[in-house]
Amino acid sequence: MMKAEIIAVGSELLTPDRLDTNSLFLTEELNKLGVEILRKTIVGDDRELLSKAFRDALNRVPLIISSGGLGPTEDDLTRETVADLLGRRLKLNEAILDAIKARFRSFNRQMPDINVRQAMVPEGAEALNNTRGTAPGLWIEDGGHMIALLPGPPRELKPMFLEEVLRRVARSVSTVRMFHRELRVTGLGESAVDQRIQPVYKRFTDVNTTVLASPGEIQIHLRMWTDDAKLAQKHFAEIEQGFELALTDRIFSRDGSSLEEVVARLLTLNGATISAAESCTGGLLAQRLTSIAGSSSYFLGGVVCYSNEMKTAWADVPKELIEAKGAVSPEVAVALAEGIRRHVGSTLGVGITGIAGPGGGSEEKPVGTVHIAVASGGETKARAVRFMGDRDMIRLQASQLALDLVRVHFLYNGSAKRG
Amino acid sequence: MMKAEIIAVGSELLTPDRLDTNSLFLTEELNKLGVEILRKTIVGDDRELLSKAFRDALNRVPLIISSGGLGPTEDDLTRETVADLLGRRLKLNEAILDAIKARFRSFNRQMPDINVRQAMVPEGAEALNNTRGTAPGLWIEDGGHMIALLPGPPRELKPMFLEEVLRRVARSVSTVRMFHRELRVTGLGESAVDQRIQPVYKRFTDVNTTVLASPGEIQIHLRMWTDDAKLAQKHFAEIEQGFELALTDRIFSRDGSSLEEVVARLLTLNGATISAAESCTGGLLAQRLTSIAGSSSYFLGGVVCYSNEMKTAWADVPKELIEAKGAVSPEVAVALAEGIRRHVGSTLGVGITGIAGPGGGSEEKPVGTVHIAVASGGETKARAVRFMGDRDMIRLQASQLALDLVRVHFLYNGSAKRG
Repeated sequence: MMKAEIIAVGSELLTPDRLDTNSLFLTEELNKLGVEILRKTIVGDDRELLSKAFRDALNRVPLIISSGGLGPTEDDLTRETVADLLGRRLKLNEAILDAIKARFRSFNRQMPDINVRQAMVPEGAEALNNTRGTAPGLWIEDGGHMIALLPGPPRELKPMFLEEVLRRVARSVSTVRMFHRELRVTGLGESAVDQRIQPVYKRFTDVNTTVLASPGEIQIHLRMWTDDAKLAQKHFAEIEQGFELALTDRIFSRDGSSLEEVVARLLTLNGATISAAESCTGGLLAQRLTSIAGSSSYFLGGVVCYSNEMKTAWADVPKELIEAKGAVSPEVAVALAEGIRRHVGSTLGVGITGIAGPGGGSEEKPVGTVHIAVASGGETKARAVRFMGDRDMIRLQASQLALDLVRVHFLYNGSAKRG
Repeated sequence: MMKAEIIAVGSELLTPDRLDTNSLFLTEELNKLGVEILRKTIVGDDRELLSKAFRDALNRVPLIISSGGLGPTEDDLTRETVADLLGRRLKLNEAILDAIKARFRSFNRQMPDINVRQAMVPEGAEALNNTRGTAPGLWIEDGGHMIALLPGPPRELKPMFLEEVLRRVARSVSTVRMFHRELRVTGLGESAVDQRIQPVYKRFTDVNTTVLASPGEIQIHLRMWTDDAKLAQKHFAEIEQGFELALTDRIFSRDGSSLEEVVARLLTLNGATISAAESCTGGLLAQRLTSIAGSSSYFLGGVVCYSNEMKTAWADVPKELIEAKGAVSPEVAVALAEGIRRHVGSTLGVGITGIAGPGGGSEEKPVGTVHIAVASGGETKARAVRFMGDRDMIRLQASQLALDLVRVHFLYNGSAKRG
């Protein structure tokens, strides 16, 4: 399997304002060809450092893709640096020069002299046509190495890669491809998930398994490099089966969908509608449910009731209950869920009350205490939790658990197509 | 000036799914100390490649900051690799182990055995306290080199860097600092902003000005490298004055605060309260208003009323008005704002109705059409707009404009301390 490195050139990429995003596109396209990215390097407009970066990469991999440093100005050094490194002279390419001049003419402008530099090509290099800008890319084959020098602007780099680079790389890669599967899990920590699934994925040495934690969920990426699609599917299926036994209903997505997408599908699939009465999440649940196109067909309404008055006015929570149990209590969560459901006339009603912090915590009700209830006409399910983290994290995890309780409701009541 | 390199560790950062964003924060903070970033390297969870990356960096710079690879799982290799590279043994640190166990206990969880790995520390290394997660960071000084190993999750890395790493680096850097000022603008496009302010910032050749566009707002960064704090403040003040003449009330933040933070300050400053009746934004406005700590003191309540029934039930929008003018109309926006204000009894009421798409658009009411109104007891201000972009973009811009209308209300009614 071929290995490659990506070098992003430009001092602006070493400031706090700019990130190299081209590499995501390049990685995706190269992975599809079965090319693995071994390393990414971001280096400034400095001849010596740039030369070192290319020299190091040449010692490691047969394919190098660089972006940036092909412009006309003094600090665009990629062209010269690579030519020097490979001991090749730069020669003026008349055809390219004419193309650049023509481009300026088409905008009724004269080509500034400095742009001549963009027509300088290392001996034996192929120019890569740039349909969106002046700087042509360069393709150099040198002692078993392939080097593609591409312009920095994504709108120039992307078409050039697809139209000019892809087929050149494809020539010399094997038929090996990368197959990928993403599963998502909620309600378990990273190490707990890893501990449970390790015995499964350890058995499959030819599948690379990565466990990624992000707020409120764990993503499991399965990657396999092979030319045998059937084998990949077989392994993925076996691993998924093993994961299911280990994680039971904690897997909510098998295709990378978000939890709100899964819940949206379940609501639609079951012809069900939903409403929400939120306190500590302040509308986050409603916002996530309505972030899905077409959500108006199942999301009938939501209220954000911080104050007790509004809990009573909008979700019919008895004043006395709040006084007796406190606004943050399982009883009020249940009352919010049943009240908003009745009030709106939806199939399901969700109630959330808790303390997102940083203030408002107490000895027996510390910050992070959250009560969530889902009313469905039958028995109302309620959950009491204590979340870790700051205000944003607590709100996010609360909305995540609320969505998961709705998902689980359909898992055990009504049809729940696999996410 | 001291030079540093950043190494981001994690195979997921070499996939199309993940981008290393920590380096932006690290670069900003290190720049402030006058430390220049020479190179960024992104490398996977591979002991040999990881070791090579650190070895190369050690040959180039005195300071290395790495992120990632400190987790409990098998493929978290940074700790071991760096220890090997420096020829130091890993020893179990009981104090750290107890801290990790205590953290799990505080959430009523048992520490999984694999987390023991996170308590292993190279001889002579200092543990960096992790207030947000289990993995402590590591600080190693070795033959004139400083190495900081930080966890990958931004919410763990950032506080650890500020609380533990900053002062250690500061000990040994020069007196040149980077001074930074961020202004935020809304309601104008990137090129419009740049065109207006160019004449101002072009005059200050020793100040670096960057204009960045992000959804719903434009950020203007002023940066100056100097050991003369007074000079920096003087230049920034002069530039800000010029910007104010050029951008008038479009500047909403002079300290990098978000628009919801600015609005929160204005509400508190004016002892005012607010409520919201949202249709197309589906709770996004309420969610943003309540994302601020202490928002319960000014946010009295919000409703998400997709259906006409709920617009009538919760915000007293007359059935006939909706039938006559349509749910997406200036009249209904005004009715929502005035209705929710009356219903909740808040100082201000905000009403939003529109078409976020992708469906629901028509010839005379295309996707992106949004009506926003702010009721304050006096004359209700309403704005009709057509936003570009996808569903998320339209919802975000709508919530942004709603917040800005509230800001502008205080700008011209009541005290509006500078954001």
